[in-house]
Amino acid sequence: MRTSRFPLFTSKETPADAEIVSHQLMLRAGLIKRLGAGLYTWQPLGLRVMRRVERIVREEMDRINGLEVLMPAVQPAELWRESGRWSLYGPELLRLEDRHERDYCIGPTHEEVITDYLRQELRSYRQLPVTYYQIQTKFRDEIRPRFGVMRAREFVMKDAYSFHLDQDSLETTYRDMHAAYSAIFSRLGLRFRSVGADSGAIGGSVSEEFMVLADSGEDEIASCDQCDYAANTELARSRPAAPAATDPLPAERRSTPGIESVAEQCTLLGLTPGQVIKSVVVMADEAPAVLFVAGDDELNEVKAAHALGAETVRLAEPAEALAATGVPRGFIGPRDLPAGLTQLVDHRAATRVNFSSGANQADGHWINLNWDRDMPLPPTADLRTALAGEGCPRCADGRLEIHRGIEVGHIFQLGTKYSEAMDARVLDEAGDARPLIMGCYGIGVSRVVAAAIEQNHDARGIRWPAPLAPFDVAIVSIGAERSAAVAEAAERLYADLQAAGLDPLWDDRDARPGVKFADMELIGIPHRVVIGERGLNAGELEYRARDATASEALPLDDAANRLVARIQDGA
Amino acid sequence: MRTSRFPLFTSKETPADAEIVSHQLMLRAGLIKRLGAGLYTWQPLGLRVMRRVERIVREEMDRINGLEVLMPAVQPAELWRESGRWSLYGPELLRLEDRHERDYCIGPTHEEVITDYLRQELRSYRQLPVTYYQIQTKFRDEIRPRFGVMRAREFVMKDAYSFHLDQDSLETTYRDMHAAYSAIFSRLGLRFRSVGADSGAIGGSVSEEFMVLADSGEDEIASCDQCDYAANTELARSRPAAPAATDPLPAERRSTPGIESVAEQCTLLGLTPGQVIKSVVVMADEAPAVLFVAGDDELNEVKAAHALGAETVRLAEPAEALAATGVPRGFIGPRDLPAGLTQLVDHRAATRVNFSSGANQADGHWINLNWDRDMPLPPTADLRTALAGEGCPRCADGRLEIHRGIEVGHIFQLGTKYSEAMDARVLDEAGDARPLIMGCYGIGVSRVVAAAIEQNHDARGIRWPAPLAPFDVAIVSIGAERSAAVAEAAERLYADLQAAGLDPLWDDRDARPGVKFADMELIGIPHRVVIGERGLNAGELEYRARDATASEALPLDDAANRLVARIQDGA
Repeated sequence: MRTSRFPLFTSKETPADAEIVSHQLMLRAGLIKRLGAGLYTWQPLGLRVMRRVERIVREEMDRINGLEVLMPAVQPAELWRESGRWSLYGPELLRLEDRHERDYCIGPTHEEVITDYLRQELRSYRQLPVTYYQIQTKFRDEIRPRFGVMRAREFVMKDAYSFHLDQDSLETTYRDMHAAYSAIFSRLGLRFRSVGADSGAIGGSVSEEFMVLADSGEDEIASCDQCDYAANTELARSRPAAPAATDPLPAERRSTPGIESVAEQCTLLGLTPGQVIKSVVVMADEAPAVLFVAGDDELNEVKAAHALGAETVRLAEPAEALAATGVPRGFIGPRDLPAGLTQLVDHRAATRVNFSSGANQADGHWINLNWDRDMPLPPTADLRTALAGEGCPRCADGRLEIHRGIEVGHIFQLGTKYSEAMDARVLDEAGDARPLIMGCYGIGVSRVVAAAIEQNHDARGIRWPAPLAPFDVAIVSIGAERSAAVAEAAERLYADLQAAGLDPLWDDRDARPGVKFADMELIGIPHRVVIGERGLNAGELEYRARDATASEALPLDDAANRLVARIQDGA
Repeated sequence: MRTSRFPLFTSKETPADAEIVSHQLMLRAGLIKRLGAGLYTWQPLGLRVMRRVERIVREEMDRINGLEVLMPAVQPAELWRESGRWSLYGPELLRLEDRHERDYCIGPTHEEVITDYLRQELRSYRQLPVTYYQIQTKFRDEIRPRFGVMRAREFVMKDAYSFHLDQDSLETTYRDMHAAYSAIFSRLGLRFRSVGADSGAIGGSVSEEFMVLADSGEDEIASCDQCDYAANTELARSRPAAPAATDPLPAERRSTPGIESVAEQCTLLGLTPGQVIKSVVVMADEAPAVLFVAGDDELNEVKAAHALGAETVRLAEPAEALAATGVPRGFIGPRDLPAGLTQLVDHRAATRVNFSSGANQADGHWINLNWDRDMPLPPTADLRTALAGEGCPRCADGRLEIHRGIEVGHIFQLGTKYSEAMDARVLDEAGDARPLIMGCYGIGVSRVVAAAIEQNHDARGIRWPAPLAPFDVAIVSIGAERSAAVAEAAERLYADLQAAGLDPLWDDRDARPGVKFADMELIGIPHRVVIGERGLNAGELEYRARDATASEALPLDDAANRLVARIQDGA
């Protein structure tokens, strides 16, 4: 492609309303153009990137025998009423009426439609398992769409749905899908982790999220630097450290008037936070519980909810805590705690010895408390957030790293939620009608493009991983308008690279070299060749990788071959 | 692909609510599945066909430097208010409100969005001409959607928009687009015609329609059997026949009481319809006019409107005709017609001699009237519908054929309609802001699939043109469950065909041969190979083209090569 036939609508100015770097760069590089709130036109340059994502997604879905379909974007309300989601879904579901005043929505997802399809078409368990997928424009009426295509209202998604006679079959497909997702993000050249997602304490469905790692990510992920363990920090565990071998000291009660925080407690008593155990009163589905965690740890409310079997856990208000324990705030502790309260101790806190804690009376704290000797050890659980540098819970040598990540995929063992609600059954070998067992699997195709930029950019613009780049290589001709030699050399290199199966962008505009260089860097083409008269006179072209800090000379005669070799090596 | 991993949801029964054969066959073959009124899921088999259409469309759009974009399906009402179409468009425009009660529509077309894009991004006339296209799901809220995807509410369309500084440039792109459309429908293996469309007497924009020929088509097309002349019969002309060399006879007035039709007039006077000239009173934009056409011709109201410079022409009611002429119905004629009436004579009627016509008095007709001798010849025009077998108006030898057609494409020189309304201008070389000149070009991608079936089917099912077939060749193995030799031969042929770059469908179901044959014919795979034990014992496979009436034997050892050669020849 030549820029004379492929207008680049680049801009030097950072748009004022773009908060994150991918949004800024996508607008500046002319990948997308805003049409309205959360609505974007994909310009030719951006669409080339999205099509590369789609192609790889499609190939990997096909490889695991996914069958591509295209379901309507506009869906009748009846199906959503059947599943119960017409009333459950919030205002993000864009509802509308047709000219006959019948209710529809623009689908943010297609569980109902595909389940309706299968319950009508499926004739025999022998047609199972089967996986359908589509790559389609979806709509979610976000209350405050922002971050460009990262959280747009209209977006492109790959959604897949698998159907099974039994759980074993679902698990096999789920594993295939996990492998396919890993292959997709690897082939796209992205650094990513798959993490166990919080699927709620009740229900226990299995699901995993795929996260592209980027400092700007909304999610925090702990992952091992040695093995493939990774989890959202809401769920991540770490290997318990061996408890210090310290002799128990006699417990002593100290006067601590007015103490309100662990820091004040440490200062007054001459302790480190690690020598303190915090007592945290929480409301678990509105019932109080006291949780004990080490003074140098953070209570993790998601883990606490799982441990308490609650849907939600929140910190108790001071009045709620006082009502539940009868002890003023800051002085609650495990020794002499009023009976009848649910208590849990974090595993790490349970290994502490000679610790300090509230005395369950105003203005008093204990030091040198020890579990079992001074009070019974309550049930223990994992209640703390794992930290960078801690041991991996899975392998022997790994240490946890903490990254931020952007969710780009989610795979889910749905079970019979939709097939029960919608009465989608199939006859098994014995002739019994059994509800279909279902999995669903999404990839935010348009979101992947933004996430890739969040992960790969610098001050000059986008640094596309080669598989995502809209063009493989940029040819910048300088003065081709005035020099037949330059025009001819550029034309030949352009043809040679195309003949080798590459997709070159020839910047043949009559513009200053600096403008062209800046544009090619902004739009992030991985390789660049400069063809100018001075170089040609020396029999050379100037080559530079987008990531390199210096250019190098390529002999004119062999430039195409060397470029092709270099690009194919890197890809 | 194997049918064991690609469930075929075929059906023997013709769905009661499907009126046309493409709709029936698409449902029966499992190409599409109805979700709601005018809403269809594209099943894997159907989507493979649509993807083949899309690929060829994309290739030809790219070849003429079309740049692919993807615009939002949901469009803000503001843009439609700017263009004036928010109020002009009828209830087919599906309007909706988002959660903030702002107005949107689901786009049936994207002139507003692309014009808005260009007026923001375009910086110089040097970036022109430029053509953008997209392949996208559209919505049109048809009052009575029917005929399956032929007139669905949600459908897939390729829409393209070109922008120019001047009319010459628009015409160049328009010609390129015409050539690209011809290439697309040729490559798809369809019989088609491009015809000048009626663009209305007022306005005079240039547009052409592309029609796939099929007996069930809603439009009627006249086309030359020798050259590329083609036109909608509303507009088609034919070469005037040389007038018969007959001596004029004396005009005579006859008494014809009660005559009401040409047929009665002929019977009473012993004439053929060709010896009669009909006098038809019409209301042209509510003003009366008398039109004379030969008794064996049909008045064409579209042509009459063009000739009279009227927007609409309709037959006058008897009272209107009487009021305008003062002559009772059935007795109007060119001789002694009251003065002050607009008159036009069809070219063919103008060459007639010795004709019969009304005497402009009750119960009287003339015979042997002759123009100029008996009354002056009024202005002449083309007022009749051309008929099959008449001479081509363009070439010397051609004869007109009449076909029915299905509109699948439309190209249009829009001019400045949208750019004026939306103030989309660009600075020209002299620094003057000029409105963009625009063309728009559509192909009904999903409709093409249905039109192809209307054109290519028989009693057993679909007969895909090779470029559209969901699979290139069907392998039907018989008894592979019981015979290792059959399974092995099928497996090898399947692999060999795939290695040759073909897309085979191996029907490996454990089903009766008749069921498999019927399915492969219903879904229309162009080539079929049968592998059974009896054939293998003779060292043979049985081959049959979808269109052939008999099978032939292929030697087992060379079967793959021969098949590949045959399929590639045919494609």
